[in-house]
Amino acid sequence: MLDSYRPLAVSLGDPAGIGPEVVGKCWDHRDRFGLPPFVAIGDPRSLASIWDGPIAAIDDPREADSAFDVGLPILPIASVEADIPGHPSVAGAHCSLDALELAVGLARSGSASAVVTGPVSKHQLYNIGFTHPGQTEFVAERCGVSPSNVAMMLAGPTLRTVPVTTHLPLSEVTQALSSALIEARGRSALRGLQRNFGIADPRLAVAGLNPHAGEGGSLGREEIELIIPAIEALRAEGWRVTGPHPADTMFHVSARANYDAALCMYHDQALIPLKALHFEDGVNITLGLPIIRTAPDHGTAFDIAGQDRADPRAMAAAIRLAAECAVHRASVPA
Amino acid sequence: MLDSYRPLAVSLGDPAGIGPEVVGKCWDHRDRFGLPPFVAIGDPRSLASIWDGPIAAIDDPREADSAFDVGLPILPIASVEADIPGHPSVAGAHCSLDALELAVGLARSGSASAVVTGPVSKHQLYNIGFTHPGQTEFVAERCGVSPSNVAMMLAGPTLRTVPVTTHLPLSEVTQALSSALIEARGRSALRGLQRNFGIADPRLAVAGLNPHAGEGGSLGREEIELIIPAIEALRAEGWRVTGPHPADTMFHVSARANYDAALCMYHDQALIPLKALHFEDGVNITLGLPIIRTAPDHGTAFDIAGQDRADPRAMAAAIRLAAECAVHRASVPA
Repeated sequence: MLDSYRPLAVSLGDPAGIGPEVVGKCWDHRDRFGLPPFVAIGDPRSLASIWDGPIAAIDDPREADSAFDVGLPILPIASVEADIPGHPSVAGAHCSLDALELAVGLARSGSASAVVTGPVSKHQLYNIGFTHPGQTEFVAERCGVSPSNVAMMLAGPTLRTVPVTTHLPLSEVTQALSSALIEARGRSALRGLQRNFGIADPRLAVAGLNPHAGEGGSLGREEIELIIPAIEALRAEGWRVTGPHPADTMFHVSARANYDAALCMYHDQALIPLKALHFEDGVNITLGLPIIRTAPDHGTAFDIAGQDRADPRAMAAAIRLAAECAVHRASVPA
Repeated sequence: MLDSYRPLAVSLGDPAGIGPEVVGKCWDHRDRFGLPPFVAIGDPRSLASIWDGPIAAIDDPREADSAFDVGLPILPIASVEADIPGHPSVAGAHCSLDALELAVGLARSGSASAVVTGPVSKHQLYNIGFTHPGQTEFVAERCGVSPSNVAMMLAGPTLRTVPVTTHLPLSEVTQALSSALIEARGRSALRGLQRNFGIADPRLAVAGLNPHAGEGGSLGREEIELIIPAIEALRAEGWRVTGPHPADTMFHVSARANYDAALCMYHDQALIPLKALHFEDGVNITLGLPIIRTAPDHGTAFDIAGQDRADPRAMAAAIRLAAECAVHRASVPA
């Protein structure tokens, strides 16, 4: 267990998006959602513009625990202007990036037990010179980890998936796959299940790329040439790995009982089943980092920001999963 | 309504597979499953080898209605040898093909109201000179319809999907797509919803090909170059068509409420959500034929044949859907 109290650090994301609203609602329903104390990081005005609950500005994360009962603790990020919900700005992009950087710094230094990142606007970040594809790669760099060694896991109550390739046109997926990459992502998934989820001997199910997993080579040879060698390499290390499975028959309820995570070959193969089953409470967790980082599996939703319509369940699931991972990490040898 | 009684024709499929078992179990549970009278077509010995219920051999489909209460009516197909469950043979392949041909002939001639096809072994059929990719193409040919004008729909209680391309390696999907093909499949889907499901003004949701539906071209241009033109062409004909939608956010429960069928670009995009949600009761229905043809969305399962372990729910769903479609067809102008 932890030897001293450390709160979860929750960056609010873009101040004009739904991040502040869902974090405020998480504090409202902290008991119902089963949430531990957390500290928000961002512009307090972005919270006050959409949320009527009590805000407790603090300047040391250690104050979050005692402050949490009376209000939502926040480490304030100064922004040059107050953003209007639904109207993203350059100032807001700077604010979201500063909040992310502080949250990661607190976790790196041991002042926070984990980082939960609110949704940012990539488009706005690119406008201020942000050169990373997304928050994940930024966090990896700040942690000194190569982006190629981190893996994105999507986790819901009954399914976890890890895509080998992510934001690529479908026509480029085959070219981007290699045995080495499949093996590396598989190992990241397995180690992540041990470190973050406390599963001592995790089971990984590997999807095929082609219909019916290639049907013995007649519907594509990537299973034979790329996927099976990667599975065999992981098995040779002692991991429990099955597949390649036909992707269409591995996500129903009884199939899901046979594995702890599914390794998928491309974005939609991983995201379609996850969101079909767990749209409201899917969590994105970055594996392969020295810190714990989760995020709700949704975007800024500028179109509904400021209307009190945002659903906080995904943010609550991200906070709860980060807390659970922190417990597992603390109890597992590094 | 129908002016005279016509039964559903159910081919047993490969006699060594689970087809006979699930058809027998459907008769056992005909009341619970809500099944109308049907007539099996195949070798009675394949039923008797796995199922203990009463079998009523008939030689005219019109006898099925009165026979149905006392036993499972069957139009016998003579096979040169009795097959052993789990051990497919050349004789069994001939038997499965003869049963399919008779079932289609009965529907074509108006003696049966619809055809439900039990699972066959493509491998065994190829051994006896069968040159079609599967039963669907065979049925299309027997009906005088080009295979390019039929479409496969997968239907479950809360989701229907139609893949534009089917059994292709993933790397060949992009090349196989064209605006004309997407438009043709979309039109087949829409007409099929009208004719078979009785939906007067059906709604079709079209999936993107790439992650996030290409994100405005930055993750692939097929949405802009192929999919949007097809959607616009269908809309110009007056159809209610939306998209392209990001494939990962169109299959959760509230998204599914917005359409009657989803048009998907490739096999697993259509099959992953369908089987994740409706593994036990997914039905394959062929659109674009002059007759009604459904099939359970599973194969011969030779590995469990003869063990009384096969789940009849998909076959029951296929029979029930065929009956519903027959009612809709009879009440809609041809």
